[in-house]
Amino acid sequence: MKNCSNSIAKTVIIHDNVIIEDGVIIHDYVVLYPGTILKKGVEVFDHCVIGKMPVASGNLARSLKSSYGQTTVGENSILCPGVILYAGIEIGDHVLLGDHCSIREECKIGSNCIIGRSTNINYATTIGNDTKIMDSCIITGNMTIGNHVFMGANVITTNDNSMGRNGYDEGGIRGPVIHDGARIGAAANILPSIVVGENAVVGAGSVVTKHVAAGALVMGVPAKEVSKSN
Amino acid sequence: MKNCSNSIAKTVIIHDNVIIEDGVIIHDYVVLYPGTILKKGVEVFDHCVIGKMPVASGNLARSLKSSYGQTTVGENSILCPGVILYAGIEIGDHVLLGDHCSIREECKIGSNCIIGRSTNINYATTIGNDTKIMDSCIITGNMTIGNHVFMGANVITTNDNSMGRNGYDEGGIRGPVIHDGARIGAAANILPSIVVGENAVVGAGSVVTKHVAAGALVMGVPAKEVSKSN
Amino acid sequence: MKNCSNSIAKTVIIHDNVIIEDGVIIHDYVVLYPGTILKKGVEVFDHCVIGKMPVASGNLARSLKSSYGQTTVGENSILCPGVILYAGIEIGDHVLLGDHCSIREECKIGSNCIIGRSTNINYATTIGNDTKIMDSCIITGNMTIGNHVFMGANVITTNDNSMGRNGYDEGGIRGPVIHDGARIGAAANILPSIVVGENAVVGAGSVVTKHVAAGALVMGVPAKEVSKSN
Repeated sequence: MKNCSNSIAKTVIIHDNVIIEDGVIIHDYVVLYPGTILKKGVEVFDHCVIGKMPVASGNLARSLKSSYGQTTVGENSILCPGVILYAGIEIGDHVLLGDHCSIREECKIGSNCIIGRSTNINYATTIGNDTKIMDSCIITGNMTIGNHVFMGANVITTNDNSMGRNGYDEGGIRGPVIHDGARIGAAANILPSIVVGENAVVGAGSVVTKHVAAGALVMGVPAKEVSKSN
Repeated sequence: MKNCSNSIAKTVIIHDNVIIEDGVIIHDYVVLYPGTILKKGVEVFDHCVIGKMPVASGNLARSLKSSYGQTTVGENSILCPGVILYAGIEIGDHVLLGDHCSIREECKIGSNCIIGRSTNINYATTIGNDTKIMDSCIITGNMTIGNHVFMGANVITTNDNSMGRNGYDEGGIRGPVIHDGARIGAAANILPSIVVGENAVVGAGSVVTKHVAAGALVMGVPAKEVSKSN
Repeated sequence: MKNCSNSIAKTVIIHDNVIIEDGVIIHDYVVLYPGTILKKGVEVFDHCVIGKMPVASGNLARSLKSSYGQTTVGENSILCPGVILYAGIEIGDHVLLGDHCSIREECKIGSNCIIGRSTNINYATTIGNDTKIMDSCIITGNMTIGNHVFMGANVITTNDNSMGRNGYDEGGIRGPVIHDGARIGAAANILPSIVVGENAVVGAGSVVTKHVAAGALVMGVPAKEVSKSN
């Protein structure tokens, strides 16, 4: 499971069924749950938790599965201190996950992405390649984010217009879709199911209640189209 | 203090005066400070810190007590990785506390609640039963939240209109009061002392500067009443 | 490196080249990286990480240095659980750093400051004395904050109007400048390079797109001047 080409601190807790490839560095007090796969050259900083199963205390709207499969961290990716990755996640190569970010089960993140500190990503969300999400964003469940997207700090996304009043409706609960090259300003708030088109720009602090056309610039509360291309 | 029906990782730090009931599971690198009580069936994930005394470095407006009593986590409640609970807290049964959330001294949280990841709750706040608070909310001190309330992600609440300029005035520092069944949209900002009535709805991204009547729907910056019942 | 007047938990990881002065208390599972200096009377709570080098996974706009020098925590300062301090940071005396806050390389923070829980501070930012920054704020890189400033919870600041599209331009990437005595309301959003004058007040939830004169009160989205002095 470990070999001599790795550097793994003595305090790392490695549960059963963990695969650690060559050249991996793991710092102190990291916990690797079953199903964790760390590819070549991955570095995991102190206090990270990888492969944790989601749990419910009797009050969760969405039901959980009994198994979520493996959590794979791609080659040369870096987990900063305090990162939490749930079970069934796939992270690409050369990804940087910032301090204390947390990613829920069944998410898929491409290569060359940056996920900011304290950013929380919910279940079953897909993110493309070369996308940067800054600190303290909320990425909701069942959301799709394309390639080369930029999200400023504290961008908020949601997936449930009923605010929890209709239970968990698998068809009705949909996060926004952010297409390739879109740029979302800091602290923008994007409502459920909203589509932000390719290379669109959303101004800082906007509340986005309508779809945004490809290449358009929108801003304000609620956001209005300021220009059609940029 | 421990008995054979528990499953407690060897790396758990248990200070004096800790009570752990039957069927409790505690994962790695958890720290339990004096006065911690974990009721039957509680599960505490990696890196949690429970029962920590609040501290001051000479610059805190509000003075701290020399003792805050016990911190009780109710039956079958779950603390996800990195949760921090201060001293003198009472948590009900079947509560789920998300990754990295932090709850300050003297808070009381009912049963069947969910508190989201990275949500920070301040001192002496009371939350009822069956209430759900999503990720990255700020719940201020001296605030009251009822039963069956829903708060979307990144809801912000405050308790001091002077923004720190008048020192700590025990009578004047009051957080909002959110009555039973209210739903607060994501990234809404609720000002000090504001009352949100029973079953009221606050739209996402609103800045709430006036009391909200029971059953009313408000939205906007500043929030205005859109309908009287919903 | 340690002496008998300190209280250092057995689980603390102390790398080479760490200086711990008299009267320091370090709780469990703390990691001290090379170059850490803890002055007299500092208290470090569980799971903190101090002196970590910044890292890149191939996708960072700004290039990193090979060395950042020491990270000094001033006398009687307190680090709450889960704080992360990068390399090359200077923290003054009597500073309180809240749970899970993270401060990037080359920041300088004065004395008697409070930094809230989950607040993320970026690289090379300077903060004066007696300043209070509440929970879950985003303090951007290359930003200057004066003395006696108050920032409410979830204040957002940014430093790049291009949202990542022009690479890292050392001259063009500037955070806001907040002068002495300014008060920034909760969830305000302050755009790149904006100057907030001495003793100015920014209302809660404002989006600040223009400079704010000394002593002025601004509010709204976008923020407008409501009064010239207060």
